[in-house]
Amino acid sequence: MQQLGDSSSPSFNPLVVLEFVSGTKEEAIAWLLSRIRAPQEAGGSGLLVEQLGPGVGAEQKDNPNLFLVGASWERLLSGAEDVGLFKEYSDGSMRGFTYVNRHNFKDFQGDGNGFLSMAECQYIIKHELETLRAKDETHVPGYSNAKLYPGKSIIRRLLSKGILIQMFPLHHKEELKRLSFSWYKKIKLSLQPLDEIRHYYGEGQALYFGFLEYFTFALVPMALLGVPYYMFDWEDYDKYVAFAVFNVVWCTIILELWKRSSATLAYHWGTLSRKKAFEEPRPGFHGVLGYNPVTAREEPLYPNSKRLLRIYLVSLPFVLLCLYLSLYVMMIYFQMEGWALYVHDQHPSFWTGVLLYIPSIIYAVVIEAMNLVYRYAAEFLTEWENHRLESSYQNHLVLKVLVFNFFNCFASLFYIAFAMQDMVLLSQSLATLLITSQILNQFMEAFLPYWLQRRRNKKMIRKVQKRKIPGDKELPLAEQVRLEADMSAYLGTFDDYLELFLLFGYVSLFSCVYPLAAVLVVLNNVTEVYSDAFKMCHVFKRPFADPAADIGVWQLAFETMSVIAVVTNCALIGMSPQVKAYFPESETQLILWTVAIEHGLLAFKFILTFLIPDVPKHIQIKLSRLEFESLEALKKKKMLEGAEFRKSVHGPDTPSYTKVEVHSCSLLVP
Amino acid sequence: MQQLGDSSSPSFNPLVVLEFVSGTKEEAIAWLLSRIRAPQEAGGSGLLVEQLGPGVGAEQKDNPNLFLVGASWERLLSGAEDVGLFKEYSDGSMRGFTYVNRHNFKDFQGDGNGFLSMAECQYIIKHELETLRAKDETHVPGYSNAKLYPGKSIIRRLLSKGILIQMFPLHHKEELKRLSFSWYKKIKLSLQPLDEIRHYYGEGQALYFGFLEYFTFALVPMALLGVPYYMFDWEDYDKYVAFAVFNVVWCTIILELWKRSSATLAYHWGTLSRKKAFEEPRPGFHGVLGYNPVTAREEPLYPNSKRLLRIYLVSLPFVLLCLYLSLYVMMIYFQMEGWALYVHDQHPSFWTGVLLYIPSIIYAVVIEAMNLVYRYAAEFLTEWENHRLESSYQNHLVLKVLVFNFFNCFASLFYIAFAMQDMVLLSQSLATLLITSQILNQFMEAFLPYWLQRRRNKKMIRKVQKRKIPGDKELPLAEQVRLEADMSAYLGTFDDYLELFLLFGYVSLFSCVYPLAAVLVVLNNVTEVYSDAFKMCHVFKRPFADPAADIGVWQLAFETMSVIAVVTNCALIGMSPQVKAYFPESETQLILWTVAIEHGLLAFKFILTFLIPDVPKHIQIKLSRLEFESLEALKKKKMLEGAEFRKSVHGPDTPSYTKVEVHSCSLLVP
Repeated sequence: MQQLGDSSSPSFNPLVVLEFVSGTKEEAIAWLLSRIRAPQEAGGSGLLVEQLGPGVGAEQKDNPNLFLVGASWERLLSGAEDVGLFKEYSDGSMRGFTYVNRHNFKDFQGDGNGFLSMAECQYIIKHELETLRAKDETHVPGYSNAKLYPGKSIIRRLLSKGILIQMFPLHHKEELKRLSFSWYKKIKLSLQPLDEIRHYYGEGQALYFGFLEYFTFALVPMALLGVPYYMFDWEDYDKYVAFAVFNVVWCTIILELWKRSSATLAYHWGTLSRKKAFEEPRPGFHGVLGYNPVTAREEPLYPNSKRLLRIYLVSLPFVLLCLYLSLYVMMIYFQMEGWALYVHDQHPSFWTGVLLYIPSIIYAVVIEAMNLVYRYAAEFLTEWENHRLESSYQNHLVLKVLVFNFFNCFASLFYIAFAMQDMVLLSQSLATLLITSQILNQFMEAFLPYWLQRRRNKKMIRKVQKRKIPGDKELPLAEQVRLEADMSAYLGTFDDYLELFLLFGYVSLFSCVYPLAAVLVVLNNVTEVYSDAFKMCHVFKRPFADPAADIGVWQLAFETMSVIAVVTNCALIGMSPQVKAYFPESETQLILWTVAIEHGLLAFKFILTFLIPDVPKHIQIKLSRLEFESLEALKKKKMLEGAEFRKSVHGPDTPSYTKVEVHSCSLLVP
Repeated sequence: MQQLGDSSSPSFNPLVVLEFVSGTKEEAIAWLLSRIRAPQEAGGSGLLVEQLGPGVGAEQKDNPNLFLVGASWERLLSGAEDVGLFKEYSDGSMRGFTYVNRHNFKDFQGDGNGFLSMAECQYIIKHELETLRAKDETHVPGYSNAKLYPGKSIIRRLLSKGILIQMFPLHHKEELKRLSFSWYKKIKLSLQPLDEIRHYYGEGQALYFGFLEYFTFALVPMALLGVPYYMFDWEDYDKYVAFAVFNVVWCTIILELWKRSSATLAYHWGTLSRKKAFEEPRPGFHGVLGYNPVTAREEPLYPNSKRLLRIYLVSLPFVLLCLYLSLYVMMIYFQMEGWALYVHDQHPSFWTGVLLYIPSIIYAVVIEAMNLVYRYAAEFLTEWENHRLESSYQNHLVLKVLVFNFFNCFASLFYIAFAMQDMVLLSQSLATLLITSQILNQFMEAFLPYWLQRRRNKKMIRKVQKRKIPGDKELPLAEQVRLEADMSAYLGTFDDYLELFLLFGYVSLFSCVYPLAAVLVVLNNVTEVYSDAFKMCHVFKRPFADPAADIGVWQLAFETMSVIAVVTNCALIGMSPQVKAYFPESETQLILWTVAIEHGLLAFKFILTFLIPDVPKHIQIKLSRLEFESLEALKKKKMLEGAEFRKSVHGPDTPSYTKVEVHSCSLLVP
């Protein structure tokens, strides 16, 4: 086993870093390393591990517990088969990669060096490390309280027990420089380099940036329509209705078309037809020891009824309380607003004119602060609900956060629009909320972390330069690894999508009242691309790739918002004086017509969802061709087996051969 | 090949009948029979075929072109693997049947006789016959205009060219007698024998009867609530609102719960996790020769754009025209209604009282007639649209028929309820429509075909008895086959579901106005069970089993109806004087509240759909256990292969063995 590591040592290419807590017992580290290095047949991972040499500033506080993990090309290729990677075949279609069939894949040359992207290699290593399972060990050597259960992931256990602090993939300086140049450093009229982003960060990230770009482009027609509205005829309600109708149709169609674009992207990235792996319990999950009904293995279980009690008796009331609080704050805002108006009316001056905007700005800041605090509370509560699977945890967290954020951001606008029916105040409020939250977001999201990171960076560079010849600007590997280990962890696309979701809300719900909203959102999105790209490349630790096939629960969130937008826009149209003029004598008739049209639009929306296929035709054909070929191959195989079987029954000339075939067949269709 | 048929000839068990058109050329029949008899390795079906001997009444007109198809048990078992049958495993879970693993299945005894039900055997034979594919023949021998394309189904081609008239499964007298006894002949308080129905007719039929039963039981609470309403306090709008609210909640919940029941049934019948086979073009499909982009085989293709033109330029206008016609007829009905009322008001007497009901009855009959005519037109049009797949054909047909039937049956009720706002007329109209259509339906559906069939039956029996000793009541096989060949073909569950759909509409849309509707529908359903069971057993040809996992597009149809029911019931509530009394000064307020509550209910409905899992927990666990085991098995297999591969690379001691393994592996993950 050891010689495998030694023999390929000259070409050792560090991909992933493991950081143990300082003072970890030697025996635990030695045990884990031997398990990682052990070949797969012996129940190990078959990977290469090396300890990071002491850095240039090898003072006492430098952590010696950093280990670099890599793998031979052969091991990575067989790992690619394990994780079910799809790659482009020689005929241009996407197929599941298999090691034996490797030479038929398009970009496979020589020994396969360069066939897998670095992000893929890191993903494979992460998968192999996470599926390194306990055998008959009862606990981690040296830590009798860190119990192990046969068949459960060792790495997850070490992480949840705090023995392993983190596991993260390394950046690649050269590639990163190239990517950041083509992404945001050159002044460009071109689109974002989605394929390169995917190559470096994986599909989840690339889909986010793809969605951001798509959303921005989808907003352009609306922004173009919005400018003349704002410039010329602000009070002309005739066009105002046209804008609302456009709004409704627009937000239905772009979401449907996005599904198709995302399917096209995911197909070419090989994640569309990739099967999901069996989901392991999330690291934080705890419970009483019992037998899992699915795997029949001994592991901690947590009764669902208890979880439901926690959700409905604690989380739900808490969310409702927060919503009430948010309403309360809104009411304070309206009082402040009224007071400012009163002051302005008494002694109008420039300063009282400015004062008019102050309550909105304060309210916007408070909203952002409440969102932030609530976000932490929601995370705490969802963690406490003790969900077994990461996906279920995510769904509950997203639901909690979305409901509150929606309420918190839009309640005041709904109140102004429908209870106060004051369209001027609505447009003014909308503008203040939108602009303030954008400025705050950009600051919190990119500039603040960047500034913190730069300080840390400079310190490190100064430290290195003290001991090295000047002129060589590149940091040595050891320092680079230490630097990255200290960077903040990127927490996923959750906050980025949430921001887009709220922006989508501002645009689709009320932009007919303030048509410039679309323009502002377009501007924001353009800077967002730059700041998000920047923070991905320079502020945060590199994240592991996430083989996503779509934007997941966010598609549903955006579609729900577009349904609410239909209702809101219809109500706004019904309330406009222009439409009211058509029904001079009877308000009842007006409302009935509005409701009828709204129902018609909603029905039309659902029909449209059915009519527009989610996957474009040419991708569908490719997918069914693959399916057809696999069915044909299975049939041919069965027929061959049948012939072999009959032969073996009639004349036992190839007994061992038949046995193997039978074995594989019974596994195939279990 | 021939001896296979001969050797098992004594135990030949006829399962399926093939009927050729009279005067079919000998060479075509001989060619087809030889293809059917040829073993699978030679591209045949490996089935047994025998010509039906001349009947007792072997006159000139007796068709000599009847052939019986059967198969050996071994062939049927390997066919069960081909079609992907799921059977109960020894551990109680449902697993895909494999021949090599056969002894581990629960009911497998001896050579497997009795393991498969007759319906399953017939389904397997149908599948094997339909997947008998043309090789290098260019046309059917003797019919140069009946072209064949390599890889395309021969039987479908013969059917579409009219050379083969029909292919149908035989009844089993004994089983049928037992089934019909336990189903509808004994006076029973028990439920329908769903498992036996499934055993004899397959899953599609059994699910229909399961749904019918479920729907009837679900109506019972509503019927129980309805009786006191009708008996005591007809005009008390207080309870009327309560009834509408109950209605809304009820129809949401029963549909969600049905999904769970149906999943439970389908799991135990083994259709829930069964994969759909690759869909072949439907027999009637035609087009210009080209290359199929999926299979890369030469076959007729029909451009989608042409089909869309046909749909949007011909079918859609035609449907709209029919809807207009239906409206026109409705207007005539209202004129008749007005005239009858006028006559009754002028000289009220018993007869004019009866006259009041006449227009409704005539209208109900006209509605049924229009539905019938439209049904044929819709079938013709959908056929003409030339859909490639049966599923797409079915979807377009169902959509066309549903929209028209909904409009035709309910337009007058909507008009009375919302335009005329006459609740007394509404309840009266509803009652007449419901009762008339039920009587008509039962007559058209069961008694008429039964009477026709009985006449044919008697004629045949008389003919047989003429030549045979009296006392032996059982018909000989040959006569039985001839009798069944002459029976009408059962056209599937379409009309049965459609009837239930309309009944569901009557109950869920307007039953708060006429609470007795639920009682009538329950009564109708009980008789419907008997008449449907009777017609299945005695009137129609036995249908092939249809391995359905759910009620398909009908679930969607019923859910759409329940959404419409929410809207309708909310509107009816809003219009009730009782609710109006809460808002004495402002009608606007009333409408706004109604709309708000309606939106709330719709949102609640959608949330409920998400919250209630479609598959019960214990079935989910079983399914994921199966998935987990299959993943584990695959992993183990790959590991074994990996070890073998490494061994073979280092020492070439088992080259042929490795080669086979590699081959099977590349097929596995294509």
